[in-house]
Amino acid sequence: MDIKRAVLRMEGDTFNVEIPSGNVRIGKGALAPMELMLVAVGGCTAMDVQYILRKMRYDFQMEVVVEGSRRKEHPKIYERITITYNVEGDVPQRAVERAVGLSLTRYCSATAMISATTDIEYVIVLNGQEVKRGQKKPLEG
Amino acid sequence: MDIKRAVLRMEGDTFNVEIPSGNVRIGKGALAPMELMLVAVGGCTAMDVQYILRKMRYDFQMEVVVEGSRRKEHPKIYERITITYNVEGDVPQRAVERAVGLSLTRYCSATAMISATTDIEYVIVLNGQEVKRGQKKPLEG
Repeated sequence: MDIKRAVLRMEGDTFNVEIPSGNVRIGKGALAPMELMLVAVGGCTAMDVQYILRKMRYDFQMEVVVEGSRRKEHPKIYERITITYNVEGDVPQRAVERAVGLSLTRYCSATAMISATTDIEYVIVLNGQEVKRGQKKPLEG
Repeated sequence: MDIKRAVLRMEGDTFNVEIPSGNVRIGKGALAPMELMLVAVGGCTAMDVQYILRKMRYDFQMEVVVEGSRRKEHPKIYERITITYNVEGDVPQRAVERAVGLSLTRYCSATAMISATTDIEYVIVLNGQEVKRGQKKPLEG
């Protein structure tokens, strides 16, 4: 069983957090947990796409932007999240679409975990031009 | 509308991430996105409980431990997450239970977002003794 652990120690107004991959500080004047949720979502799928396109031997640069709009009522969940993949390089459109598709339908755990409560939209921008826009389907099974 | 944004810029094997509250680095040798998901979940509810108990004027220390076990198949979502609230101080059990209850049923957005796909268990330990254990109900509506 793959078990991950985070230990959050209260220190005044903040919490010092230990995770296997490092340390972060959250709370007043430090990192905001609900913003880290966007980092988890964006990081998970960005790393998938990076891995898949590299495996296909493409040379590229990428910037992934994740925007979430929160509901006004408690709990203030993200009602909608838009993930924009900006890819620059000599990469065919179908390769980027395939990489993003594999991430959002099969590999990315973070988007899968929130897809039942959050609408997830994705946009692919290749060399400055929007080439695709779609919706992630909620996780089944 | 409350919109939050994360910008992830690929830099070699890692991504430099900008969020309104600061910067983090994710990827190979840096922070792991799925571990940050646990930080988001733990941080969200830990800050709620901190806020509520302070509002009740209690003097306490707290450590929150979040453990998640991931599924073996893709997408490797957390099937189960256990949140342990370790509270030390002169705080009545009912106050801690009330603070945790308010967070998990009403305020905490991160746990609400994943509760449809992940079983969330909570444990309250007060001055070294386990006083309560329960299950968060999935978000309704």
